[in-house]
Amino acid sequence: MNTSPQKIPPPKTLYFEDLNIGDTFKSGSLTLGLDDQIDFATQWDPQPMHTDADAAKAGMFGQLIGSGWHTLCSTIKLMVEAKPFGETQLLGMQVDDIRFHKPLLAGMTLTAVGEVVDMRPSSEGGRGYVGFKVTTYADGDVIITQKWTMLVPARPQA
Amino acid sequence: MNTSPQKIPPPKTLYFEDLNIGDTFKSGSLTLGLDDQIDFATQWDPQPMHTDADAAKAGMFGQLIGSGWHTLCSTIKLMVEAKPFGETQLLGMQVDDIRFHKPLLAGMTLTAVGEVVDMRPSSEGGRGYVGFKVTTYADGDVIITQKWTMLVPARPQA
Repeated sequence: MNTSPQKIPPPKTLYFEDLNIGDTFKSGSLTLGLDDQIDFATQWDPQPMHTDADAAKAGMFGQLIGSGWHTLCSTIKLMVEAKPFGETQLLGMQVDDIRFHKPLLAGMTLTAVGEVVDMRPSSEGGRGYVGFKVTTYADGDVIITQKWTMLVPARPQA
Repeated sequence: MNTSPQKIPPPKTLYFEDLNIGDTFKSGSLTLGLDDQIDFATQWDPQPMHTDADAAKAGMFGQLIGSGWHTLCSTIKLMVEAKPFGETQLLGMQVDDIRFHKPLLAGMTLTAVGEVVDMRPSSEGGRGYVGFKVTTYADGDVIITQKWTMLVPARPQA
């Protein structure tokens, strides 16, 4: 597994008031080799289509495919390492509309882009909910789309 | 990490025609210790609330919490190991409505239950889509709910 985090300086810390619909954040990249994919699946999703080359060859895809959960975990890793909101952590309340657009194959390089698509202040004040559409690309093609709803604190009062 | 797969004999292989709305499948259990949770988060979701005890103590939860993606990966692991459809693999097309009901804490024991909630034959024939509501429990309380849509093959013709 080869991670290439962004080489840009860390972004400044963002709070709920600093975000706007349409803001986008791009991650670095992560390449997942065949061994990475088999290791992940062996631990978390041990099915022959992910772990047994002979069985996979006879199956629907004609070859081993990586676990979709591996792509999902790679996506949160890429986004966390990109620190889109600086020191403000990514605290997910819900995840919706995960779509697996194509299978993960050995050696693919993943990148992710997050876009703020809706914002709602919490009725309790001091924070708000941010809808974040996350698109994961594999070698440039969309492989997974999803929507995260995150709880983001408001800027601390002086 | 301590896995206790079901000790019952493997179930027979089920195809699309064998499933019915309301069918439920229960997994074995998996206990995630503090080290397991920190190790997972360090690799996939490296945020201070998951990896840095001092920072976590000062944060929203007052203690380290596990990554929600750790609970999600544990859920697919538990379900795959339970082999609800026998040798028919669990091939996800989409995941909807993931809700994090409570945080994952050190030492919690997870179990999962899947229920068939909708079924739709593929227009191409030979297979169908199965909606599977998955509830993950931590020490008996609901921690995550989600809905998987899986592609399930029809019984091979004689």
